[in-house]
Amino acid sequence: MSILDRLKDAAGPDGFSQDPAELAPHLEEWRGKYKGHSPLLLKPATTAQVSAILRLCHESGTAVVPQGGNTGLVGGQIPFHGEVVLSTKRLNRIRALDARGATLTVEAGVTLATVQQAAAEAGLLFPLSLASEGSCTIGGNIATNAGGTQVLRYGMTRALVLGLEAVLADGTVLDMARALHKDNTGYDLKQLLIGSEGTLGVVTAATLRLFPRPEVSVTALAAVPSPQAAVTLLGALQARTGGMLSAFELMPRIALDLVIRHIAGTRDLMPAPSPWYVLMEATGGRDANLAASLENGLAEAVTAGLVTDAVVAASQTQAAALWKLRESISEAQKREGASIKHDISVPVAAIPDFLARATPAVLAIAPGARSVGFGHLGDGNLHFNFNSPADGDDTAFLAKWDAVQQCVHDIVKDFGGSISAEHGIGAMKVAALPRYKSHAELDAMRAIKAALDPKNILNPGKTVPPVLKL
Amino acid sequence: MSILDRLKDAAGPDGFSQDPAELAPHLEEWRGKYKGHSPLLLKPATTAQVSAILRLCHESGTAVVPQGGNTGLVGGQIPFHGEVVLSTKRLNRIRALDARGATLTVEAGVTLATVQQAAAEAGLLFPLSLASEGSCTIGGNIATNAGGTQVLRYGMTRALVLGLEAVLADGTVLDMARALHKDNTGYDLKQLLIGSEGTLGVVTAATLRLFPRPEVSVTALAAVPSPQAAVTLLGALQARTGGMLSAFELMPRIALDLVIRHIAGTRDLMPAPSPWYVLMEATGGRDANLAASLENGLAEAVTAGLVTDAVVAASQTQAAALWKLRESISEAQKREGASIKHDISVPVAAIPDFLARATPAVLAIAPGARSVGFGHLGDGNLHFNFNSPADGDDTAFLAKWDAVQQCVHDIVKDFGGSISAEHGIGAMKVAALPRYKSHAELDAMRAIKAALDPKNILNPGKTVPPVLKL
Repeated sequence: MSILDRLKDAAGPDGFSQDPAELAPHLEEWRGKYKGHSPLLLKPATTAQVSAILRLCHESGTAVVPQGGNTGLVGGQIPFHGEVVLSTKRLNRIRALDARGATLTVEAGVTLATVQQAAAEAGLLFPLSLASEGSCTIGGNIATNAGGTQVLRYGMTRALVLGLEAVLADGTVLDMARALHKDNTGYDLKQLLIGSEGTLGVVTAATLRLFPRPEVSVTALAAVPSPQAAVTLLGALQARTGGMLSAFELMPRIALDLVIRHIAGTRDLMPAPSPWYVLMEATGGRDANLAASLENGLAEAVTAGLVTDAVVAASQTQAAALWKLRESISEAQKREGASIKHDISVPVAAIPDFLARATPAVLAIAPGARSVGFGHLGDGNLHFNFNSPADGDDTAFLAKWDAVQQCVHDIVKDFGGSISAEHGIGAMKVAALPRYKSHAELDAMRAIKAALDPKNILNPGKTVPPVLKL
Repeated sequence: MSILDRLKDAAGPDGFSQDPAELAPHLEEWRGKYKGHSPLLLKPATTAQVSAILRLCHESGTAVVPQGGNTGLVGGQIPFHGEVVLSTKRLNRIRALDARGATLTVEAGVTLATVQQAAAEAGLLFPLSLASEGSCTIGGNIATNAGGTQVLRYGMTRALVLGLEAVLADGTVLDMARALHKDNTGYDLKQLLIGSEGTLGVVTAATLRLFPRPEVSVTALAAVPSPQAAVTLLGALQARTGGMLSAFELMPRIALDLVIRHIAGTRDLMPAPSPWYVLMEATGGRDANLAASLENGLAEAVTAGLVTDAVVAASQTQAAALWKLRESISEAQKREGASIKHDISVPVAAIPDFLARATPAVLAIAPGARSVGFGHLGDGNLHFNFNSPADGDDTAFLAKWDAVQQCVHDIVKDFGGSISAEHGIGAMKVAALPRYKSHAELDAMRAIKAALDPKNILNPGKTVPPVLKL
């Protein structure tokens, strides 16, 4: 029997497809940026089937690409070399909800929106929140250590996972989906799997940490004279609120201009323009006086010259209008024309110096490019993007992508930063990684990869750069 | 030149000792429970010296035990087999404090108290807090993923480390002491080192996350009819305060009785005795209304029958008196006589069922033993301890330690719990581990250990159980 037939057997009667129409959406990234090909889509419905599949792949040396909701932005989920695709879409059960203990055990293929909803129905919060939450899966979120808009308060996905069930390359099932806050009985293997982008194992289920659902949420927009003022404001408001900020997003004036130009129903909410803005949110309990706390903190900041004007949303409608300004930036950038994007992080306090150095460096390569760097200031994470010159040629601008990116990433390295804060390495950044990560770290990654996947069958070519003689 | 002489050279002129008087305190655990021996104490003052030492150990196959403040409770820091001891005591510099970015970079041998103080002097908080904080080191805290009293709000040590510098078995320096909240550029190697108890590398420095210093802290003691009521109360107060609880400690009546009997200056603070108590603390900003929030929440809980009486501290002196009741339990247990102790965790909501099953199971083995199970209910972590019978023979009681422990740990396993919530495996629990952790997990640990320390020179025999044919 051929290996493909044996894999079909292992996946069960409804567990595979070779129908080109069914395979097609699994072979291409949703923006059309990455395309692959594959002879077989596997759709196991149980952990035992995943184990049987991987055992066969390991024995036969068959490469396999694990795939969740296919929403990743760096090509990690695409079978570039004709690998078999292992979709988690049928691993879609909610196994257990413990409202008293505030934990939720779900299989990998459950969408993030379904996880959020299950938590909400129990009166609790699962705080991970992403633009793709309707279609991305919790298994993919875990495999890529997804970030999102609530990291400042709740941390990355890593901080939300209490336990994990995963299958290793040889089919070994690691049954570690434990609902424990404390467990110091050896190496924390789940931490190694989280963020490993399907190269060390396939996540099949997880026990997630749920949180009290905030009864009060306050949103405000502050006009600030500079990124430096924004960093100082962050510290002042964290102290004032006792760390209750859940979002602290920096936006330059041009981002607001583009949103107002392209997105229906948006408008400037302040009388005078400002070079920079911060959109912030604080959440807490019903007694916590958050609106007053934020208002008092902002009033003090005006006195101190950190803020020139501020709007605190008086209703959910107003809060939604403020958030719409922030959340429409990507779409507005797209409508404006071509853009070159980066997902970088530096130490929080280094953001102003980073902007001051990296912006002119990019403009020297791409004169007239418009800097639209915005993002999660509270996490030190910027989407450091540039739109093409207002009167410029998009094609000529995009031809500079590699030069601009290398320039930005080199400066990021100088600041001790990361060239992939949220999105991961996948296929997109694997070739660049040796320029930015030490050989010692890459060799340690390779040693671990070789120890757990000696035949390199799991998502080969992704995340872990090959050793090259340069 | 002998290997010991080469190691002395690598450690530099002030970097070693063979003086028995200087070695002695490094060879014995502070309670006298574990004793070892060693021909050489190494005291490197730089990461380069640590690297040179480990390279020599690796080349020559010389076993080495890393040691911080020698405060561990499971023997992980003791050279049982004549290993060389590598003390981090001279790696004691504070490298960088970034108050604006709320990060602190320190070397491994800095004590936890010094770290806390450096954060406080910058108007910030490093929330890790342990009984041994005056002498334990941050490197040891990281190597053992220490817990403590603030885990409910801030997480274990793992959650407080942004970046790490460590030296691998072959002397390779992993320079990852980055001050980044987000970095998805490959495997999170620091997570593997955190909690690995010196078996995968030697931590030489870390970049720590600091937090806003809470301006308000409210402490309360509530009498509750049952552990079940305590679990329900936890959920209600977390919802009410928006997750501002920083401690939620369960205590049985007998713990209070022992404290009042043995510890000067303590007294019962309520008119009538209760079978169980919860000591709780909430912390936050100046506007957060925390005292009212906790008072309102406790009043509602009295109405709901979850609480029979409660005291909210009206001053720091009152708060200290409440905390003294909790913090004196271990000392009171000791003065009362012999005790058998466990450091276990189960899912938070399973605590009542665990107590209901494990308590009589222990009494069947040790009739008359007095159950003094107390601890971090909010983390699902109990110090499930027993004192000898009131009129009993301590020696006969202690002879039952192994039987009692195995009984308790077997029940912990049935509840999906951990036999070492905070303290680690070290030497103490390594033989028992295969009974409680799956072969799949142990094999994965062994594969990683072999990949990163192929000659098994780093803390051999600790944490990772050998493969045995049983």
